[in-house]
Amino acid sequence: MLPGGVPISVLTDSYKATHYLQYPKARKFVAYGEFRQGYNKDKADTRMVSYGMRYLVENYISKPWTMEDIAMAESFYKTHMSPGYTEFPFPKALFEKFVLENNGFFPVKLEALPEGTCINARVPVYQITATEEYTPLCTFLETLLTMIWYPTTVATLSRRSRDVVEASFARTSDGGPASPLVQSRLVDFGFRGCTSLEQSIIGGCAHLLSFTSSDTMSAAFYAQFKLNGGRPVGCSIPATEHSVMTSWPTEAAAMENMMDNFGTGIYACVMDSYDYAKALSEVLPSVAAKKLGKGGYLVLRPDSGDPTDAVLMALRAAEKVFGSVRNSKGFRVIPGCGVIQGDGIDLSTMEKIAQAIEAEGYAADNVSYGMGGGLLQKVNRDTMSFATKLCHIVYADGHAADIMKQPQTDTGKFSLPGVLAVKRVNGVPTVFPADSGEVAPHDNLLRVVYDMRPLEGVWDDFDTVRARVASEWTALPKAADNLSASLREKVRQQMALRGKVPALVH
Amino acid sequence: MLPGGVPISVLTDSYKATHYLQYPKARKFVAYGEFRQGYNKDKADTRMVSYGMRYLVENYISKPWTMEDIAMAESFYKTHMSPGYTEFPFPKALFEKFVLENNGFFPVKLEALPEGTCINARVPVYQITATEEYTPLCTFLETLLTMIWYPTTVATLSRRSRDVVEASFARTSDGGPASPLVQSRLVDFGFRGCTSLEQSIIGGCAHLLSFTSSDTMSAAFYAQFKLNGGRPVGCSIPATEHSVMTSWPTEAAAMENMMDNFGTGIYACVMDSYDYAKALSEVLPSVAAKKLGKGGYLVLRPDSGDPTDAVLMALRAAEKVFGSVRNSKGFRVIPGCGVIQGDGIDLSTMEKIAQAIEAEGYAADNVSYGMGGGLLQKVNRDTMSFATKLCHIVYADGHAADIMKQPQTDTGKFSLPGVLAVKRVNGVPTVFPADSGEVAPHDNLLRVVYDMRPLEGVWDDFDTVRARVASEWTALPKAADNLSASLREKVRQQMALRGKVPALVH
Repeated sequence: MLPGGVPISVLTDSYKATHYLQYPKARKFVAYGEFRQGYNKDKADTRMVSYGMRYLVENYISKPWTMEDIAMAESFYKTHMSPGYTEFPFPKALFEKFVLENNGFFPVKLEALPEGTCINARVPVYQITATEEYTPLCTFLETLLTMIWYPTTVATLSRRSRDVVEASFARTSDGGPASPLVQSRLVDFGFRGCTSLEQSIIGGCAHLLSFTSSDTMSAAFYAQFKLNGGRPVGCSIPATEHSVMTSWPTEAAAMENMMDNFGTGIYACVMDSYDYAKALSEVLPSVAAKKLGKGGYLVLRPDSGDPTDAVLMALRAAEKVFGSVRNSKGFRVIPGCGVIQGDGIDLSTMEKIAQAIEAEGYAADNVSYGMGGGLLQKVNRDTMSFATKLCHIVYADGHAADIMKQPQTDTGKFSLPGVLAVKRVNGVPTVFPADSGEVAPHDNLLRVVYDMRPLEGVWDDFDTVRARVASEWTALPKAADNLSASLREKVRQQMALRGKVPALVH
Repeated sequence: MLPGGVPISVLTDSYKATHYLQYPKARKFVAYGEFRQGYNKDKADTRMVSYGMRYLVENYISKPWTMEDIAMAESFYKTHMSPGYTEFPFPKALFEKFVLENNGFFPVKLEALPEGTCINARVPVYQITATEEYTPLCTFLETLLTMIWYPTTVATLSRRSRDVVEASFARTSDGGPASPLVQSRLVDFGFRGCTSLEQSIIGGCAHLLSFTSSDTMSAAFYAQFKLNGGRPVGCSIPATEHSVMTSWPTEAAAMENMMDNFGTGIYACVMDSYDYAKALSEVLPSVAAKKLGKGGYLVLRPDSGDPTDAVLMALRAAEKVFGSVRNSKGFRVIPGCGVIQGDGIDLSTMEKIAQAIEAEGYAADNVSYGMGGGLLQKVNRDTMSFATKLCHIVYADGHAADIMKQPQTDTGKFSLPGVLAVKRVNGVPTVFPADSGEVAPHDNLLRVVYDMRPLEGVWDDFDTVRARVASEWTALPKAADNLSASLREKVRQQMALRGKVPALVH
């Protein structure tokens, strides 16, 4: 059953149920989805981690429809029209046809980039084709497919965050960017800041492509057992929250209890329940002997105030109590104690903190980050400008046409015309017209992941996808000229039919 | 089955699975959730529409756990610890106890405001209690319960948007704020901008509390069939998208086909596929005769450029073609044609457009709005500062203590101490200490919605909740002194134990 028990037959925008009456008669429609810009419109670094199609296909696209789904749709659509008008139309006959003749499988072909493929903006992440009598259904799934904006955006944000961590380790840590500590330095704190359980799974898995640390257990579970054959993907540590610190007569008592339970391992304590400065200057020294006696690793967690100040205050306090060791790069590492900043963290505060601790001579080893809403919720479809657009039609009379949206009022919104293929050119995924003969089928990064029915063996396990991100991200240039000459020429021809040529293809 | 097939036993932040070892021995814990601020920190209008607990209780909190859920949790937790340390702890014995002894129902009591209750910031929207051996589980559900931030925030944004529409109608429309047109003026275009299907259901239902228009069919279906006994809740109209307009040889042909299919009713056409100005100045006049012959209502939809300019351009073009009629307030209404702006819409652009059309003498009747990501995705837990905090403990020795978080580094983050009750004072929901004797049980707006098991008859149907929002929102003062004197006194006492008194309670 789908979330909320809603039938699959209504999982689109209302207007899409009416489009079957609005298209010209045709034998074939092709549409595709792309991110038109890099993260937060960054023009200097347009890289992104394409991710999330597997979830959509396995949980939605490949679910067979039943006559009951159609009956539920009908009872809904007949009351969905604005008052005073006729019934809301929907393609009932086409739905019935594929339920009866195609085992209920939605009658389209879907191509997608392999999960985790690193691309620059404007490379299609999927392409969908419908033919013959099912042609009018080509765009019915657009609403669901468009949701790929989310995992791809989170995966990109998380990977960019890793860039910040790696750079910080490169400058200040003995281990450098390859330090095993890097992978645990950004913890997903975003579960409660999500809108729903399903979001937490999708976004949380996207983060786990670049880091191993996550408190979003829904995602860690899903990634491990549904995507990775049971092999662990995400981990965490015992940690207090305010309810723990405030439930004891003193914060020192709460910390001592933590040490009793977890003192030989790694554990974290939130420090600002009453007076952060005092907790660092008085409570921490008061439990230092017990901490040292146990030997484990204590992580101090600020949770209010200016994030950079909060981290520096904790480092200074911890160093005062536990001392520090100078590493080969001249930066200081505090033994057995560090800080995690999980309040107010986004890409820019991470960078600020990394710079600030470096300026005070602290190694990156001392600090971790927790990102909550900033990681899983404070992104949207505009963050990387995702859209799906129709690109090719074969009309009923056999005449074919490449299609291109080209609004004069926003030339950045022009779409790519014609059926598309993606091939690496000097390692850079580059967009070609599929009909140019330049992309052999085995070179096309757009792989068929569904074809009138679910296909076997199209998905890699999570470990493989992770490895792909790790190897492709750093190899990809930050920005690239990734529209092939032949595609640019096609854009020019389309523009000549209608009006001006956008700057991008001059 | 839950989304993604994840077991209910891992639906919390990792650290919460470890908290049972971190609390002092106790007989009772009480925690509560509140929004500390109004929408976007608005101090002049702190009203909000409390909404969404029903979804959480019906889909998660009230689901019985099984031994299989625990076994799945165990196989996960045993691998979830950061490498090099011991197994990740979780309260297995307590889980097993309530599976065996309480039919698998999570052993807490949950109180919540009636769905749709309008409150000012700082009123608890829920309170949770755990007692005796189950006391350490009190905060396990916090992650799920905290997700109430989302439907409440969207419901509030949507209701505030209705304020903008009503004000615009009051100034310029014959029907005034009570016009039957008001309820359809903001259409939910947010489905594809959501992160997940589940989000679209939750957020889309929140919008339907204040408006009847929605293209998010997942929510319209859920609200109708799961929350309202099958009675219709949300409606829409046939409308084109770019794929429709670009699939025909000309935009005029696409519009004529719309008129052939829907010309006697209401229908919308997107107008910027190639050249918005030209579509208004040339295409629209070319299909005007056919439009008039059919008689229905044509809605023009811009989709790029400056939103205010785009609306004004469409109104001027439509008036040139179809004329206008002056209403009793002196504003012009275009017969049979209007505009919907669905690109770049948020509260502030709605207000700007409403002002701009008024300045040009157009009545509000001519314009509708579509809000997509702005409505369902561009909000987060910080938008109204939601948090859950522990407020009361009875320790193992019988000693009771009110608990209050009071970080010096952010005095706005202080929590409310003690068990809480909510009673209307001059119509304003006001927070009292439950032990002050000031709130009789039947006056307490915090109603028990779950008590060691699901309860019958605790939820109102959607029509009732809608009516509650409609009547309570306008009756509630925009800002209110809603902490009772006795609660302020309790805060003062708590503060005296620790340090300073926050400004709010001086």
